[in-house]
Amino acid sequence: MNKLNWQDERNLTMLADFYEFTMANGFLESGVEDKIAYFDMFFRSIPEDGGFAIMAGVEQVIDYLNNLKFTEEDIQFFKSKNMFSDKFLDYLRNFQFQCDVWAIPEGTPIFPQEPIVVVRGPIIQAQMIETMILLTINHQTLIATKANRIVRAAKGRPVVEFGSRRAHSYDSAIYGARAAYIGGCVGTANTLSDKAFGVPAMGTMAHSWVQMFPSELEAFRAYARTYPDNCFLLVDTYNTLRDGVPNAIRVFKEEVVPRGFRPKGIRIDSGDIAYLSKEARKMLDEAGFPDCKIMASSGLDEYIISDLLLQGACVDSFGVGERLITSSHEPVLGGVYKLTAVEKDGKIVPKIKISSNVGKITTPGFKQVQRLFDKDSNKAIADVVTEFGEEIDNTKPYEIFHPLFTWKRKTLTNFYSKKLLVQIFDKGKQVYECPSLEEIRNYCMEQVDLLWDEVKRFENPHEYIVDLSLPVWEMKDRLIKENQ
Amino acid sequence: MNKLNWQDERNLTMLADFYEFTMANGFLESGVEDKIAYFDMFFRSIPEDGGFAIMAGVEQVIDYLNNLKFTEEDIQFFKSKNMFSDKFLDYLRNFQFQCDVWAIPEGTPIFPQEPIVVVRGPIIQAQMIETMILLTINHQTLIATKANRIVRAAKGRPVVEFGSRRAHSYDSAIYGARAAYIGGCVGTANTLSDKAFGVPAMGTMAHSWVQMFPSELEAFRAYARTYPDNCFLLVDTYNTLRDGVPNAIRVFKEEVVPRGFRPKGIRIDSGDIAYLSKEARKMLDEAGFPDCKIMASSGLDEYIISDLLLQGACVDSFGVGERLITSSHEPVLGGVYKLTAVEKDGKIVPKIKISSNVGKITTPGFKQVQRLFDKDSNKAIADVVTEFGEEIDNTKPYEIFHPLFTWKRKTLTNFYSKKLLVQIFDKGKQVYECPSLEEIRNYCMEQVDLLWDEVKRFENPHEYIVDLSLPVWEMKDRLIKENQ
Repeated sequence: MNKLNWQDERNLTMLADFYEFTMANGFLESGVEDKIAYFDMFFRSIPEDGGFAIMAGVEQVIDYLNNLKFTEEDIQFFKSKNMFSDKFLDYLRNFQFQCDVWAIPEGTPIFPQEPIVVVRGPIIQAQMIETMILLTINHQTLIATKANRIVRAAKGRPVVEFGSRRAHSYDSAIYGARAAYIGGCVGTANTLSDKAFGVPAMGTMAHSWVQMFPSELEAFRAYARTYPDNCFLLVDTYNTLRDGVPNAIRVFKEEVVPRGFRPKGIRIDSGDIAYLSKEARKMLDEAGFPDCKIMASSGLDEYIISDLLLQGACVDSFGVGERLITSSHEPVLGGVYKLTAVEKDGKIVPKIKISSNVGKITTPGFKQVQRLFDKDSNKAIADVVTEFGEEIDNTKPYEIFHPLFTWKRKTLTNFYSKKLLVQIFDKGKQVYECPSLEEIRNYCMEQVDLLWDEVKRFENPHEYIVDLSLPVWEMKDRLIKENQ
Repeated sequence: MNKLNWQDERNLTMLADFYEFTMANGFLESGVEDKIAYFDMFFRSIPEDGGFAIMAGVEQVIDYLNNLKFTEEDIQFFKSKNMFSDKFLDYLRNFQFQCDVWAIPEGTPIFPQEPIVVVRGPIIQAQMIETMILLTINHQTLIATKANRIVRAAKGRPVVEFGSRRAHSYDSAIYGARAAYIGGCVGTANTLSDKAFGVPAMGTMAHSWVQMFPSELEAFRAYARTYPDNCFLLVDTYNTLRDGVPNAIRVFKEEVVPRGFRPKGIRIDSGDIAYLSKEARKMLDEAGFPDCKIMASSGLDEYIISDLLLQGACVDSFGVGERLITSSHEPVLGGVYKLTAVEKDGKIVPKIKISSNVGKITTPGFKQVQRLFDKDSNKAIADVVTEFGEEIDNTKPYEIFHPLFTWKRKTLTNFYSKKLLVQIFDKGKQVYECPSLEEIRNYCMEQVDLLWDEVKRFENPHEYIVDLSLPVWEMKDRLIKENQ
């Protein structure tokens, strides 16, 4: 399938907080517009107190950055505000993106307090792309993370994303389906996301199909005749066990089997799924259809799915809607974009933002994230935020320590390390080839497998270690003291 | 400002649940595609147990319906699935929208269990537009409702929507700002929503502005020199009361007043807003700037704003981000789209969907919503869901009764009534002119004023009456009995 280029047609350059333009104009007026600045995007906590998040949205950030441009209409809009200089309007007219950008690849498990996107470039530009980078990564990461939780709860049973109708407007449905696929869903209800990204679209019938015919039996017959090879019937419009399942079985026997096919499945969209699915399973088995699948939908999430499976519900696949597409238990990933350094005479000068809340003090400097893996098990042990050029010598014991409770220390041996941030733009030019969505999805599964089970628990998971390297810690400590 | 026509460029026709197409193909194969069907969109509960919701999104539904079309690329996509008939693909190729559509105008307070959109048309078409109608109205209504709560909590102080960076992708920011404006916000951080809809974009500086200069004082000076007539300073980058406010005052005196302007304000984005705002107010007053406003942002919502004001916080305006743009306490308005009738030989045959949960049984038939107002106070007393052509005689006493607890009865006198659903499409042609966004926003304020205060409470509000007229109740009762 071809990918549709949404951004290109819509010019999302103007999707930026207005203060990015008042500042840009001010930087220009103050003569500091070309000073090189460094920004980190990072988040401070994982939704639902989970053990990890799943990086997603990098491809859309790349599309956006490749398409940055201001139309004459945009420029007239700014002019009409009577607060931007002609010099600034000319700057916008001739805008050429020049920043360097690094990002952690999509599908990677990520953790709080580590940079997941780093931008280096003229302050006027690096500041202007704040909103779109945050918006894109915050949204897709939130949904990929939620989807991964739900998929893990389903323990191998396919999960289909069914939430478009409850999404927060169009892109939330379109890109939400993409993110859910990265997180491990097998498909989506949203036809457009199939056409746009190749996320398989799935669906059969609504209750209205059943209501359109004189009886449920006739409705099932009509469906079976149209799709004998793909006969999946919704059995809860009137009375699931008394009518729905018996009618489905009758139609499977009368319309599907005689045409040389096996029935595909039934879907239950209301009532007590544990009870109904067990009874329906018995009825289908007794009718000679042990291969006929049972799909459940209606208000599901990872908690309900876990409970249903604990109770022995006979469900083969799940359709999950609003609680996935909005991450309804916690609908925000609070990624922020903070200035960490500026260059002066070619030297990087680290910058800090102080807060009375210790967790909100930023980590200054141009940094890399390195993930340390155990050589025997291949499991991820810890992430260390290092200076960008800093090398970790894997041949020697390496001591890591907690950045706040510095007496919490651990010496690692028998490990290897991997740098997570990869460059995606070099002086405004894309230097990274996006993997296919299938590759991202497979990479996500592989990388989640490298986490310890303790980190993957829903309730009270083990807190994965994200430490600062000694040079980064010392720099931060010095800047805190200087600003007190 | 010109309105940008997003839909047109993106062809959102394909943003539909895949089952709408499998059913459409099936309706055609079964020869029932042209049967006239009626659908209601309604919701079952108000987010956060609120007393009412605010209708929003009708203009975008109209845009979508006006632009419905399948491109050859779309048709090839369906062909590649090997499950759609050539006849169906031809149908899509020649698609002409033919439905009648009614909707409650934007800005109107709406309640559970009443139709807010009604569609009448050939089943193949009426079914196909389900997802986009739900998605559009669910999202904008959710955000307009949340914004209205926050605006009411602020008791006349301006509220600016600051949430783009935490929105669920691009449209959630773009249309979320529109919906927030309908709900009563005075502006948005999102520049694009200003350009697209005229929602005033607002913003001044981020912490990074302060960090970019050698000191906070120099950063404030640079800003004041650029915007002496609009000097609004962010004072919490380092230490709000020790440095931020004194530096702001110094710069107001040295750079703003001498240029003939008054300082506009300061913004506090962290720390204890109640304490900091009171101390900052004193400092500004003592410095001779009682007219300098204090804006608060950072993790706000209606509950925190109410608490801050109870504690006497000296805040003149609020910037509200993620909790508004995602309606984070309850991020879903669960609007559904249910078949209520089909025509047979020109007669309307009501249809029902039964459920073991009484609240989920649908109300059959082609219906209107009538709002009854008290003649003396002009306050809204109740809504009555009637048959579409049913007239309520305001000159006689009118008895309303609870549809489940039918012994709860009330006889109204001295009232007038208003039909809420207005026709927006007649046989596929738009017959409604959308009001301007300003008109919608004003209408919303007026209509919310017509609700009793008891309905507007955040905690445990009075449940506004939504009853069925006797003919509708009798029809529903009959259909329930027939389907038992």
